[in-house]
Amino acid sequence: MRLEEIKDPSQLKHLSLETMESLADAIRQKLILTVSKTGGHLAPNLGVVELTLALHRVFNSPVDKIVWDVGHQSYVHKMLTGRLDQMSSLRQYGGISGFPKTTESPHDAFNTGHSSTSISAALGMALARDLNNEKYEVVAVIGDGALTGGMAFEALNHAGHLGRHLIIILNDNEMSIANNVGALSSYLSRMRSDPRYYKGKEDIEQVLKRLPSIGPKVVKMAERIKDSLKYLVVPGMLFEELGFTYLGPIDGHNLHSMITVFQQAKRIKGPVLVHVLTKKGKGYAPAENNPDAFHGIGSFDISSGKARPKDGPPSYTEVFGRSLTQLAAHNPKIVGITAAMPDGTGLKYLAEEFPERFFDVGIAEQHGVTLAAGLAISGYRPVVAIYSTFLQRGFDQVLHDVCMQNLPVVFALDRAGIVGEDGETHHGVFDLAYLRSIPNLLVLAPKDELELSQMLTGALQHSGPVAIRYPRGQGKGVSLAKRYEPLSLGKCEVLEEGKDLVLLALGPVVYDAAEAAEELKGKGISCTLINARSVKPLDEETLLKVFRKCKKVLTIEEHVLAGGFGSAVREMLGRHQLNDVQVVSIGLPDTFVAHGNANLLRQKYDLCPEGIVKTVREKFYFRTAKTGFSTL
Amino acid sequence: MRLEEIKDPSQLKHLSLETMESLADAIRQKLILTVSKTGGHLAPNLGVVELTLALHRVFNSPVDKIVWDVGHQSYVHKMLTGRLDQMSSLRQYGGISGFPKTTESPHDAFNTGHSSTSISAALGMALARDLNNEKYEVVAVIGDGALTGGMAFEALNHAGHLGRHLIIILNDNEMSIANNVGALSSYLSRMRSDPRYYKGKEDIEQVLKRLPSIGPKVVKMAERIKDSLKYLVVPGMLFEELGFTYLGPIDGHNLHSMITVFQQAKRIKGPVLVHVLTKKGKGYAPAENNPDAFHGIGSFDISSGKARPKDGPPSYTEVFGRSLTQLAAHNPKIVGITAAMPDGTGLKYLAEEFPERFFDVGIAEQHGVTLAAGLAISGYRPVVAIYSTFLQRGFDQVLHDVCMQNLPVVFALDRAGIVGEDGETHHGVFDLAYLRSIPNLLVLAPKDELELSQMLTGALQHSGPVAIRYPRGQGKGVSLAKRYEPLSLGKCEVLEEGKDLVLLALGPVVYDAAEAAEELKGKGISCTLINARSVKPLDEETLLKVFRKCKKVLTIEEHVLAGGFGSAVREMLGRHQLNDVQVVSIGLPDTFVAHGNANLLRQKYDLCPEGIVKTVREKFYFRTAKTGFSTL
Repeated sequence: MRLEEIKDPSQLKHLSLETMESLADAIRQKLILTVSKTGGHLAPNLGVVELTLALHRVFNSPVDKIVWDVGHQSYVHKMLTGRLDQMSSLRQYGGISGFPKTTESPHDAFNTGHSSTSISAALGMALARDLNNEKYEVVAVIGDGALTGGMAFEALNHAGHLGRHLIIILNDNEMSIANNVGALSSYLSRMRSDPRYYKGKEDIEQVLKRLPSIGPKVVKMAERIKDSLKYLVVPGMLFEELGFTYLGPIDGHNLHSMITVFQQAKRIKGPVLVHVLTKKGKGYAPAENNPDAFHGIGSFDISSGKARPKDGPPSYTEVFGRSLTQLAAHNPKIVGITAAMPDGTGLKYLAEEFPERFFDVGIAEQHGVTLAAGLAISGYRPVVAIYSTFLQRGFDQVLHDVCMQNLPVVFALDRAGIVGEDGETHHGVFDLAYLRSIPNLLVLAPKDELELSQMLTGALQHSGPVAIRYPRGQGKGVSLAKRYEPLSLGKCEVLEEGKDLVLLALGPVVYDAAEAAEELKGKGISCTLINARSVKPLDEETLLKVFRKCKKVLTIEEHVLAGGFGSAVREMLGRHQLNDVQVVSIGLPDTFVAHGNANLLRQKYDLCPEGIVKTVREKFYFRTAKTGFSTL
Repeated sequence: MRLEEIKDPSQLKHLSLETMESLADAIRQKLILTVSKTGGHLAPNLGVVELTLALHRVFNSPVDKIVWDVGHQSYVHKMLTGRLDQMSSLRQYGGISGFPKTTESPHDAFNTGHSSTSISAALGMALARDLNNEKYEVVAVIGDGALTGGMAFEALNHAGHLGRHLIIILNDNEMSIANNVGALSSYLSRMRSDPRYYKGKEDIEQVLKRLPSIGPKVVKMAERIKDSLKYLVVPGMLFEELGFTYLGPIDGHNLHSMITVFQQAKRIKGPVLVHVLTKKGKGYAPAENNPDAFHGIGSFDISSGKARPKDGPPSYTEVFGRSLTQLAAHNPKIVGITAAMPDGTGLKYLAEEFPERFFDVGIAEQHGVTLAAGLAISGYRPVVAIYSTFLQRGFDQVLHDVCMQNLPVVFALDRAGIVGEDGETHHGVFDLAYLRSIPNLLVLAPKDELELSQMLTGALQHSGPVAIRYPRGQGKGVSLAKRYEPLSLGKCEVLEEGKDLVLLALGPVVYDAAEAAEELKGKGISCTLINARSVKPLDEETLLKVFRKCKKVLTIEEHVLAGGFGSAVREMLGRHQLNDVQVVSIGLPDTFVAHGNANLLRQKYDLCPEGIVKTVREKFYFRTAKTGFSTL
């Protein structure tokens, strides 16, 4: 059977192992070809080819539910569940998502994107199944990285307590939990999940009973030896202690082993954890050799494995990471914290230069934030670099542990705004709303990479907490010569003065507003152009002065409008009872933003020069010398 | 030495055990006396009297840092650190807090309130200490309940990985983790933390070497027996597996044991966990017999242990809990989820009636929310009852797991608004801001307990997610006859029509607004009084109609103004370009609200009839028949 013939995973049921192995080869080819063009999470998917085939061989999706934790490893699953011919649209606007989507296929049991949610979701499904007296399997597939997220532990703890049947596949691709693959482990695993195991256990007890008696101390020890028997035969005692039956570790590239053990897992009552060892990037040498680079990657050349070179200015991430390292060289109190993203956040530079002042807490945003609070209260200056969307996980800690004590922690929110192809689970478009209601916290956004560096410099001199949000991708290519001149926090920048309209923009969209202002000037409309820089506090002095002169204001932000920057501007007007200012806001509507090219999405939501001009045309009326009271 | 003579914990250093025991008695008397008047967390504090004495005997606060997880068990600590004579002001406005406050004393190393933060904070402090090459102890005191919170696990995992010296005191007062108190455990504990232990270990290894050889299977087993040696002598293998040295369990009411083991803990390198068994309510029979009732309690009669009877209407919690149970009786798909608060949320009624549809997930808000998503996607109607302030922990899960999939989960946010004596860590005054930016989510607030019941009824018929926020305390005493008539969601209620001013109130403050309207009527100002009911969506149709007739609007909410209800009203006006409406907002300013009597705090922030009238007088001008254009 050829890969193209698979329209439904049920077709895998009766294939020979040989055929499945040749399907695995075809899937790998397709994965490499697809992602070399679309970009995406190549290495994780190459690692789960056999695992996914084995899952769909043993379980009956969509009756059985498979929940993919994080979900970026679901490409193989998508290929096997009727979406092979849509792979070329992967992550493109209007195409299929790089994550599971229940709206795409009944085989996608639950939407994921953020880490460590799968066990909770799967347990909910299992409870529903049991309440309905139905019989089907619920399977969560979770990586060893995701398992460090606290909510995964909360779920394990609850699942073990409830004792319902539920299968967790631990996809261990870092070998960070156990590396004892091999004959003994396979043997132990089979023994444990096999009725014959119980006979084995009896044998051992017979042995223990025959222990020679050598003093009273040892008698007690012998009793404890019997009690601790399970630790003798079970490598995964941590899971056993939490109430799970542990199977494994098994080779995640051996179809036969996995099929056998998954079938055993179905027969075990209560919660089961199957420990599967996979290799990230498996089967494609460049990815095997450099799995981090191929975790999430843009388009690349297949034969060389080289990413297509990017011209142009450095990314915000790069500028942030290098600036922080430089600042840390001059201030020994600066420390950096990341939640499993040293590369993605640019903290790798700090890690290289000052390893003792760099802390990777794993996928553990909550802990990372409060760890920073502990460092800050002890006189350090922690910079917590977490993507905007992932800091949602640490919201309570930002509020309760950092801001309530007014501690000087800097939050560097990379990937704020629209992130593009990763889509709705990853856009960082809620941060202003969840952060600006928190007392003591300053909330800032630079217009370009120079300002990012200057804000960071300023923030590290501020006596309280500061959040700086900046986008994914390349900067504006501005000179960085003055990067360590600290920005005066809470002040905006008036870039142009005009009399007809105020364009008040936050973040890099300031550049789009400048283009729009230029175009509007050609139409006889003179604009005051303001780079807001600070959402909290607003620069009330400057803004009120401007607004008293010009009563037409357009706010522009890459963030949902509900509770965002424009909303803060309106509140300020209310506080000062400036009731005759017309405020129009460009931003994201009250809906989740889909995946697709970031600039394409920005255009869709008028976050571009044309969109700004269009909005001005539609919403404002101007009295011009030529035309009298009129629209543009 | 008498308790009154203790001004600093250093005075404990050289006291005899007898003297310390008599201090323990005096502390208990003082605790019972204080809390019988002020209310507070009696049982947890009675449980840690000896523990706190032992801590301050062995550690040198404030050089050594003691971080109290949750912090409601810090009363004894406060008594021993110079605040004995302020105990009568406990939890009162202007008095000392019921939680640690760094602003109160240098002995309060870190502010707490929400659960499971202490290990992260303590680890941050330990890292700072090591970076400074300083020598002092950092001690986190965490309960067994708080240990189920995911962030505690994240912190344990990281602390174990880093291997820095750090002491965690596990205050196990439920005996839920281990109950093997006694001679053997004390023996094991001493052996483990004592150099003699290593000798013991060698003894055992000698024994194991002498194991008779009985077939090849057993040879391998014998090897594994040696590997698993630590599980033979260590009951806390879960912690050992995470990299901690485990000591215990020890009797938390035996000063001598604790002092000995704490001193041993100081000598051990790397992270140490001391497992201490305490009894909630210890030493006061009514609290020992009913520790739940005495966990957090109002004022009570000491001799009978009876809470002072409360007259008046049932609480919102009570009405919610009973209504839900009744609704569940008619709809088998309704399930309830609480994070360790069956009593506090009123879900105990559901638990009693339909135990199979009730899930207490422990202190695990993140998991609780996503568990609900798993149930909802499987056809169930989960009601997640979590206090407003604690749902901050589940913010990302509400957004990412529930709302992004538009799943019909009802969030019941009890304790929304000002909660009173528990203070700044517990006020639920950010929920509108963090919830109303989330697409798909309806955000509602009833004016009284009848509406709460009706909203719940309506929410359980809605096809998407709904959040209902309601306050702590007693309802308004309205008739509940029509409680199961579902409210039409997203619609406001016009209670009175007037021409001069719109009073637009959210939640029970509607009743205050009604009183204010009455008073204003006497001054010649006729008000339109609106019960907003829904923050999202706003009832745009009704509101715009009203605002087009009357251009003066006062919004009133028990929530921070930044991003709150008034802000949503302003956004609506912006969307519809109604630029000539004057909106004034009453709500909480951009600061954390202190502890104290809830009504007193409400008065402070104008959330009362007088405050509303005062604000109207200060902010609006009215043209009246008698006076022409004038203020009131």
